[in-house]
Amino acid sequence: MGMVMKTDIFMTQVGEWLKATGPESDIVISSRIRLARNLKGYPFTSIATKEQLTETETYIREKIEQNKIIPSMLYFNLKGLTQIERNLLVERHLISKDLAEKNSARALALDKTESISIMINEEDHLRLQVLKSGLQLTESWQILNDLDNKLEEVLPYAFSSQFGYLTACPTNVGTGMRISIMLHLPGLTITKQMEKVFQTLTRIKFIIRGLYGEGTYATGDFYQIANQTSLGYAEKDVINEIHNIIHEVIKYERAWREKLLLDPSKQLEDRIWRAYGILRYGSSISSQEIASYLSAIRVGITLGLIKDIDTQTLNEIFIFSQPAHLQKMHNKTLSASERDITRAQYVKKKLNIR
Amino acid sequence: MGMVMKTDIFMTQVGEWLKATGPESDIVISSRIRLARNLKGYPFTSIATKEQLTETETYIREKIEQNKIIPSMLYFNLKGLTQIERNLLVERHLISKDLAEKNSARALALDKTESISIMINEEDHLRLQVLKSGLQLTESWQILNDLDNKLEEVLPYAFSSQFGYLTACPTNVGTGMRISIMLHLPGLTITKQMEKVFQTLTRIKFIIRGLYGEGTYATGDFYQIANQTSLGYAEKDVINEIHNIIHEVIKYERAWREKLLLDPSKQLEDRIWRAYGILRYGSSISSQEIASYLSAIRVGITLGLIKDIDTQTLNEIFIFSQPAHLQKMHNKTLSASERDITRAQYVKKKLNIR
Repeated sequence: MGMVMKTDIFMTQVGEWLKATGPESDIVISSRIRLARNLKGYPFTSIATKEQLTETETYIREKIEQNKIIPSMLYFNLKGLTQIERNLLVERHLISKDLAEKNSARALALDKTESISIMINEEDHLRLQVLKSGLQLTESWQILNDLDNKLEEVLPYAFSSQFGYLTACPTNVGTGMRISIMLHLPGLTITKQMEKVFQTLTRIKFIIRGLYGEGTYATGDFYQIANQTSLGYAEKDVINEIHNIIHEVIKYERAWREKLLLDPSKQLEDRIWRAYGILRYGSSISSQEIASYLSAIRVGITLGLIKDIDTQTLNEIFIFSQPAHLQKMHNKTLSASERDITRAQYVKKKLNIR
Repeated sequence: MGMVMKTDIFMTQVGEWLKATGPESDIVISSRIRLARNLKGYPFTSIATKEQLTETETYIREKIEQNKIIPSMLYFNLKGLTQIERNLLVERHLISKDLAEKNSARALALDKTESISIMINEEDHLRLQVLKSGLQLTESWQILNDLDNKLEEVLPYAFSSQFGYLTACPTNVGTGMRISIMLHLPGLTITKQMEKVFQTLTRIKFIIRGLYGEGTYATGDFYQIANQTSLGYAEKDVINEIHNIIHEVIKYERAWREKLLLDPSKQLEDRIWRAYGILRYGSSISSQEIASYLSAIRVGITLGLIKDIDTQTLNEIFIFSQPAHLQKMHNKTLSASERDITRAQYVKKKLNIR
């Protein structure tokens, strides 16, 4: 028997990574590092039977519990969750869409601050994740490396002296490390510089994409930059390289924001204040739209134009105004049009209006 | 020498017709009746020489002045006005675009409340106009008829016992009367009922069009309904007929507004509050846009949703946020983008914000 956890806890807190306390958090939302690990002697999840998956999940859970790998751990077996709760975990950036759709023994272990998490039986047996506010790659790596070492002491990792850690997908072979930085780039988006950024990053083998992983588009000027391969590079080299690249992008973004501010047509200022007006007064707001408004207001806060909303409140709205969060909040399934109305109401409440 | 009048007076007042005090003024903005008259023995303006136009203008002005036809009259000779001042009079619904473009002796006489006005040397020698708030056809007709009688006592009207009053354009021959009702029909517009209204009115020989006369489109759900011909009908019959038609349109509009209010997706409510938010906070607002926002807020006031703006303030914004009014306010020519910014600033000031 796994522990029974209530997802209600997610309705009364936000992850530490959303507190906007990290370095460069005017532009960098979060830094995430993930490691892919598999167990020797257990079949990869893609070819495992239901029973084998259950066996793997039980084995990993017991080891984590017994050795107190994660302090004050929360543990969710996906089987016990409703569709809304699963989607809630996706919106929370804690599990992948893939994992949310599975009905065999799949699980999520995490610490209370939502900084450290482990997906069990996703594409790999273990997906270790550290998620921090702002640009904190070195710090995140230390925590993740520590977690990885502790697990390796109690679990038999599949490792090849030639290839490194073995993974289900070849792009993760080697260090098995994937770094992903979430950035807010309205300046580059409005001024149509993103195409250049895309081309440059792709050329040097980095991936840039929208907010919810592969195949998605940027919503509200939020992007993820990630490394593409992890074979043949030491972790620290990859971290250094991505650190330098992100700093370049930040510089570029800041320069364009300043140019935009000088625009006599007040395009940016207008966009910011309209977003503010619509969030305050709109009666029905779609999820596509809200990302764009929150993006504008985020810039407004950075530029000192908007003083009565802080970035943390904005981040909370970002997370809690998502479909599954709204439905969990109301404890029922809502149609798209009902969600749009409850979204507008929630935003007003958060902004202390009426 | 004509009197020298300063158009500055228009910056400190609005016409009485904009005070939203007339009957049905939740839907009917204004009632306008116009008469076309020409002088016997003077050539029509389209064939008159510059000298003849001057002669006609001088003659008419002197007669009006000497006989005190209009109490506390304002008089503007178009020649003495800048382009911005001419456009201001168009935006004010006091002269036609045609008259604004002419450089020979053309003039406007009006009373201080802007209810009574006479265009001199437009298409006809005299265009008499009465403009009132809401649906006031009978009242307007009495005032206009009285003005017409007084003028007829001192000016030799061109009149044929067969055709009635002779006019430059055959559609005005007969009574020379043109009635025009300005309506606000957001309910019928949003629910796509306007096509039906157009067809019905056209079939019974009425004209329906946008705010600034022929060839314009409806801006912000505001429409003008006018009669098409004036030959062969007594004035009172035409007035009765248009009165009945307008009452039908009003009933139809009210019914659709009620249906819209029951819409669970809150489409109308959302449109109203977004408009409110954008007017309060936008930094740059185009003239196209503002008409649509003012339209939404007008409905919001009618439905009791918006309580801190009254219809008169809204009407003032409607008039003063037009290009020539904004430029007159700043005493200089402004580019479209500068106007959009000053428009947003003006609106904020009127709504008492920041």
